Amino acid sequence: MIPIISVVGKSDSGKTTLIEKLVPELTRRGYRIATVKHDVHGFEVDREGKDSWRHKKAGAHTVVISSPKKAALIRDVERDLNLGEIRDKMIRDVDLILSEGYKRDVQPKIEIFRKEKHQELLCTKEDNLIAIVSDQIFNVGVPCFDLEDMKGLSSFIEKEFLKSREGKEVSLKVNGKPIPLSPFVKDFLTKTIRGMVSALKGCERPEDIEIRIEGEEEYERVA
Amino acid sequence: MIPIISVVGKSDSGKTTLIEKLVPELTRRGYRIATVKHDVHGFEVDREGKDSWRHKKAGAHTVVISSPKKAALIRDVERDLNLGEIRDKMIRDVDLILSEGYKRDVQPKIEIFRKEKHQELLCTKEDNLIAIVSDQIFNVGVPCFDLEDMKGLSSFIEKEFLKSREGKEVSLKVNGKPIPLSPFVKDFLTKTIRGMVSALKGCERPEDIEIRIEGEEEYERVA
Repeated sequence: MIPIISVVGKSDSGKTTLIEKLVPELTRRGYRIATVKHDVHGFEVDREGKDSWRHKKAGAHTVVISSPKKAALIRDVERDLNLGEIRDKMIRDVDLILSEGYKRDVQPKIEIFRKEKHQELLCTKEDNLIAIVSDQIFNVGVPCFDLEDMKGLSSFIEKEFLKSREGKEVSLKVNGKPIPLSPFVKDFLTKTIRGMVSALKGCERPEDIEIRIEGEEEYERVA
Repeated sequence: MIPIISVVGKSDSGKTTLIEKLVPELTRRGYRIATVKHDVHGFEVDREGKDSWRHKKAGAHTVVISSPKKAALIRDVERDLNLGEIRDKMIRDVDLILSEGYKRDVQPKIEIFRKEKHQELLCTKEDNLIAIVSDQIFNVGVPCFDLEDMKGLSSFIEKEFLKSREGKEVSLKVNGKPIPLSPFVKDFLTKTIRGMVSALKGCERPEDIEIRIEGEEEYERVA
């Protein structure tokens, strides 16, 4: 599962600027970064009269525009998605997701704080605060980085969220719902499925495995 | 896997108009439709100066903008994606994907043809042509629908691509590559995995199952 970190801070604390400085440093280290921004006002991402705009207007749930260098997608949602849902429904092919804002989401948070702007922190450790970026030192039990120390902050993120991911990971969804797995069940599922898959031609050394089973099974009725 | 149909036709044959008429009829029948359009010229989907635009400019591989009613995503690609890749990397939560164009892709195709505009068809059955929409009757071994017969065309799509999907489906990817499965292997994998999963608490009637296993297994060296 792609890890998510939220960059939070009070209004005008410099969240976008921090992301603008952090993304190039992480990219330089070889990671692909996705960012997520909430937009309460809605947005226009396509121009009136274009074919894709006409598709959406006709009622398409999702519209994709593809080109040789980038691809765009616009889709309907029934309500604001949380970050986990955004990851699962929309994001592929990246190593880390950074959100701007989303302070009420459960994901780990980095708070940016500038003393000229505000009096006190927005988050506590109970909000899943993992680091502070500030021109002031805080003693609240999480690492504190200078506003310009993108190398230090990137190394921290790398160590905690990127390098540590190299171990095994298993996720299971049943009927669309994520199922929590105990270490024993994880191990059992992983070993059984790896065993089965490795018996297939061309799959002798399976590392990442993805299986989807769709549709109804006919269950026998129990009298 | 979400089925894909391409709406193809020569220039100015009315592809966008056909999609504009077909999407509402399929939506009225309760299906969620995604459309895909290729844009050779590239596109602008975000406005200069906006936070999400600044994220992308800073080098983010993917940028998501989320709001209560819709969500948008812009991502880098290394080359033009084919329709199967667009489905796998980008699209979730829909029943059918309709592309405008993509006549060279392998997916099933509906050709739109208007006699005032062109002399002959673009596709043959060898191009995976499955239907023609036209003001002229063709005898080329595929059903032919009138330009206004969206009910007939929708019923055909429903029967061939949507209702027939209600059975079981299994897909397996190993190290990112889709693995073709024989009916025996499909059946074996499905039954074994359903069996294991149904032993877990809260998973007594698993219909759709999704399992991801990531990371390296330590294989024993064979001397």
